[in-house]
Amino acid sequence: MKRIGLILAGCGVYDGSEIHEAVLALLAIERAGAEVVCMAPDMKQMHVINHFTGKTESDQERGVLAESARIARGKVVDLATVSPQDIDALVIPGGYGAAKNLCDFAEKGAACTVLPEVEQLVRTMIDKGKPVAAICIAPALLAKALQGYTPRLTIGNDPETAAALKAMGAEHVDCPATDIVVDEKNRLVTTPAYMLAGNIAEAATGIEKAIKQLLTMV
Amino acid sequence: MKRIGLILAGCGVYDGSEIHEAVLALLAIERAGAEVVCMAPDMKQMHVINHFTGKTESDQERGVLAESARIARGKVVDLATVSPQDIDALVIPGGYGAAKNLCDFAEKGAACTVLPEVEQLVRTMIDKGKPVAAICIAPALLAKALQGYTPRLTIGNDPETAAALKAMGAEHVDCPATDIVVDEKNRLVTTPAYMLAGNIAEAATGIEKAIKQLLTMV
Repeated sequence: MKRIGLILAGCGVYDGSEIHEAVLALLAIERAGAEVVCMAPDMKQMHVINHFTGKTESDQERGVLAESARIARGKVVDLATVSPQDIDALVIPGGYGAAKNLCDFAEKGAACTVLPEVEQLVRTMIDKGKPVAAICIAPALLAKALQGYTPRLTIGNDPETAAALKAMGAEHVDCPATDIVVDEKNRLVTTPAYMLAGNIAEAATGIEKAIKQLLTMV
Repeated sequence: MKRIGLILAGCGVYDGSEIHEAVLALLAIERAGAEVVCMAPDMKQMHVINHFTGKTESDQERGVLAESARIARGKVVDLATVSPQDIDALVIPGGYGAAKNLCDFAEKGAACTVLPEVEQLVRTMIDKGKPVAAICIAPALLAKALQGYTPRLTIGNDPETAAALKAMGAEHVDCPATDIVVDEKNRLVTTPAYMLAGNIAEAATGIEKAIKQLLTMV
């Protein structure tokens, strides 16, 4: 059975992993008969956002691993303990957590830094020819982690975000929410999901295509 | 366009709504071309569970509405402001939140009490002939809210939970995770989801059937 790593970054679009994207990826992977290995870094979230009011809860702290466990129903491991040998492919859902916790792209744009254990995992996967899928804003993380590889990616069609990816050395391709961009050379699959999707059905169409493509590349 | 209410109870299987079940319901409703109206009570959660360790975080407080907003991507309304006239059908996902926040079945079993605004909404829907679907443990809430209606329900096949539903006056029917139980008289649809499902694909099969059946009853 193929084992697919899923990197989570908290639980909620504004400060963690985008929940729909993570669940849709889980569903597509398990429906294809593969096994999911959920993982998350054991660290504090950058901050906590009240998703009803949109305001930052400056008196609150939450841990990325414990919040990610909500999406994984408790079955999540510390990302630092995962070796690329343990998995056949990797999926990184979006949500601001991918740009706030896994790297600091949300704050620093093209000058961002990726969490070292995440960068190392991504680079080693690609170096071993194991495919990686990134959803929504998560391709920004790939662009930084794979500087020098000229990754071919999409984050939809937002000109400012696309320019930041290009500034990190990536090739950006405009793409609708219901479709994917494939980088055959680096074995990358990306889809815009909620960077563009008007509803969960549109996001699901793109994510299902991305996971199907990813699994053909394993 | 049909408008389907979705009652959320937090965000996470152990203290809120089961995330997969809620997202799968959202997906099935939007794929069927209907509109989702997410709602949650504006109250504190019974408690906060660390989903990585399984322990209660006794120093933490979280609000049901703000946590539910994570699943709804911010688009959620206070349940107390929703009238049965606003919606054509109702869906209640499971997770302990349905048995800890929407009612106290997790603590009190058949002697539980349902949150008055939830009980009133459910009863009025049924009295108006508008269908209600309940997933996982949420049928326990229906059994209490519909005492005197002899609702026909499933929570899978757990003998203790089934006995509690019967003690509240419901008829319990054993059912696998991939199937549904329909109460034509009261216009109820129930599916066991993670009361029995071994993975998200099994839960999705049952939830898709439940939503499809619900929409035919609108």
